Amino acid sequence: MSNLTINADRLLGRIEELGRLGRDSEGRLMRVAATDMDRLGRDRLAGWLGEAGLEVAVDRIGNIFGIWADGENKGREPVMLGSHVDTVIDAGIYDGCYGVLAGLEAIESLKEAGFVPARPIVVAAFTNEEGVRYAPDMMGSLVYAGGLGVEDALATTGTDGSVLGQELERIGYAGRQRPGFLKPHAYVELHVEQGPVLEREGIAIGAVENLQGISWQRIVIDGVANHAGTTPMAMRSDAGVAAARVIAFLADRAGASPTPTVATVGTIAFEPNAINVIPSRATFTVDLRDPDEVRLKAEEALLTAYLDQLAESAHVAIRTERLARFEPVTFDSRIVSLIEDCATANGLSCRRMTSGAGHDAQMIAHIAPSAMIFVPSRGGISHNPAEFTAAGELVAGANILLGVAAGLASD
Amino acid sequence: MSNLTINADRLLGRIEELGRLGRDSEGRLMRVAATDMDRLGRDRLAGWLGEAGLEVAVDRIGNIFGIWADGENKGREPVMLGSHVDTVIDAGIYDGCYGVLAGLEAIESLKEAGFVPARPIVVAAFTNEEGVRYAPDMMGSLVYAGGLGVEDALATTGTDGSVLGQELERIGYAGRQRPGFLKPHAYVELHVEQGPVLEREGIAIGAVENLQGISWQRIVIDGVANHAGTTPMAMRSDAGVAAARVIAFLADRAGASPTPTVATVGTIAFEPNAINVIPSRATFTVDLRDPDEVRLKAEEALLTAYLDQLAESAHVAIRTERLARFEPVTFDSRIVSLIEDCATANGLSCRRMTSGAGHDAQMIAHIAPSAMIFVPSRGGISHNPAEFTAAGELVAGANILLGVAAGLASD
Repeated sequence: MSNLTINADRLLGRIEELGRLGRDSEGRLMRVAATDMDRLGRDRLAGWLGEAGLEVAVDRIGNIFGIWADGENKGREPVMLGSHVDTVIDAGIYDGCYGVLAGLEAIESLKEAGFVPARPIVVAAFTNEEGVRYAPDMMGSLVYAGGLGVEDALATTGTDGSVLGQELERIGYAGRQRPGFLKPHAYVELHVEQGPVLEREGIAIGAVENLQGISWQRIVIDGVANHAGTTPMAMRSDAGVAAARVIAFLADRAGASPTPTVATVGTIAFEPNAINVIPSRATFTVDLRDPDEVRLKAEEALLTAYLDQLAESAHVAIRTERLARFEPVTFDSRIVSLIEDCATANGLSCRRMTSGAGHDAQMIAHIAPSAMIFVPSRGGISHNPAEFTAAGELVAGANILLGVAAGLASD
Repeated sequence: MSNLTINADRLLGRIEELGRLGRDSEGRLMRVAATDMDRLGRDRLAGWLGEAGLEVAVDRIGNIFGIWADGENKGREPVMLGSHVDTVIDAGIYDGCYGVLAGLEAIESLKEAGFVPARPIVVAAFTNEEGVRYAPDMMGSLVYAGGLGVEDALATTGTDGSVLGQELERIGYAGRQRPGFLKPHAYVELHVEQGPVLEREGIAIGAVENLQGISWQRIVIDGVANHAGTTPMAMRSDAGVAAARVIAFLADRAGASPTPTVATVGTIAFEPNAINVIPSRATFTVDLRDPDEVRLKAEEALLTAYLDQLAESAHVAIRTERLARFEPVTFDSRIVSLIEDCATANGLSCRRMTSGAGHDAQMIAHIAPSAMIFVPSRGGISHNPAEFTAAGELVAGANILLGVAAGLASD
């Protein structure tokens, strides 16, 4: 494949152009799922798919497909390249869009080069990956993989009171295809890392071999509110101090561990939250992630044991509530190796890595061998207008996607 | 003095009666300084002072005095007993009122018993001790002791936009006396502990020998917001974890110390405060107290050194802002001993202790030998309708006040 490359100007031009569509009066990119702004992006994508000579199909949950199939390979399971074009509020221009447009670019470049695939190659844009307006996120790929019924998904009420099915009808993307109508032979998703690892290590390509499991809990610690001046330290039941010990415990555990376990306490509140009153209640969230389910369970159990012991020693009551739980996903080792081989063939540095964020690939992995390719994100910043990946890095990643697609479509 | 005792029914009846005055439609006690509800309490107090045959005087800042002086002792420096009758919002009935009404009760009982004091005995109710509507708190005693000019104090604008001087005029308590017009020979303030120590130790009387110094700071820690899933632990600048380490450090320091140092983090906020985002900023307050100024300074310095070291090790920026700073107050050892002697004479258990909260006595201590007497507070609860001290404990404390007043007025 080393002689085939994408058209860099076309890819970069489309990323820029799509990034200009769906901005509000303050210039913020807001292509939130199934809104009029999302329609702008979808229409532009569908136009490009058609111009590239692909068959455009839309399924009932609004997933868009550009299908390159000819008489010879029609009917075989396709190689699918994909991601999403919906965005968060005030988004950057790369998250999702890069993977879809690079998938289109790979197909177009292969077509133009006279490459003859043994299987169809399809580019997919899945509906509502971000989950800003309708929960859960990654909904289009979840429905496509059979994890959520399409009727249930279409009946979802949004944060603005809208119903997803009606909104898809309104913007013209309530398609006729049955979700799952194309069973992929393999699925590959190219994405910006949204983390700092590749940039810090100076590596061009991430061969993503797995995706972290996620455990979200809310923890509520109840102590006793008392006067900060008149209550001796030994007579306190300080919910805030107990919360601080949990935060330090998690950071110490995950920080000292040689495993990729990450632990984050992102939200906290004290009650009554007065400068001279010992907190009677501390409420905070714990985000625990690990690519290994056994280890993730072990970390959860260690936290539970620590909380039990802390309740006793700190004279507080502690309760926990599970907010979300996803098992880790292991990607297909053959595709991961193919990504590494393509990087080597292109003279690009590459490392195996774990995806810390959720992606459509984790859903499609349930119905087809799947993997992901990452390119660096400057400063690890994402879901933010400052999200940035350099042109050369974008082109390099798209060339790897092209090579992997060609390899997967060769037999 | 052991044969003299107060009239328990009269004292308890007045505490109950004053506690019924100044309640809102929901039954909440709201005698906030210089409001119409405060006037209700003041009018009732002034009535009782007059009925007891005391000369009633009001100074320019609205402090009320009931003076028992006769031809013989007139002109000598008086023994002053006092506290305040303003309340917080939704207050209990004891804080402040107990000390004023017990002072009146001590004087009345001494008069009725035919006791002949060598000095006048005065009961004082200081304006705006709580500081809910007008800052600073303990304002009436602060002005009385010369720590704040009366014109400046009267010009204070309240949280509701009102001006204190106009409000005192309106409710009829803009008096004519110069604040400080009676220079006390000694000042004694009886008060509920507002802390748990006496109750937990089963002790009837606290002989308060000093009052903690207070150091309030706001601490702002700046880290870097990043994705909770994609940022390895070693690459984080987590402001929340750094804040947790400060909270744990303070609790460990003060908790392990044999000194009465107390440290409290009562408020906290994370930014952006999202479950899956590493906190970029943590803002919290530190309330440090110690009755010894040298030790309080040392604790402040230890915290500063810890923050410097933490900024380095946790890759965060830390800044602090001083919110308040009061030096500790040492009360008069002769009066403290007298309190202990009276407790012994009355067969009551007694311990020396530190006041963790601020009181008018700390202001008057600047112009006269002063001390305080504490009685137990159930559960340490104060500034709350659940504030409670049993009748027997209230009577015991008032008898000690009577004995101390008689002792101080004997020469």
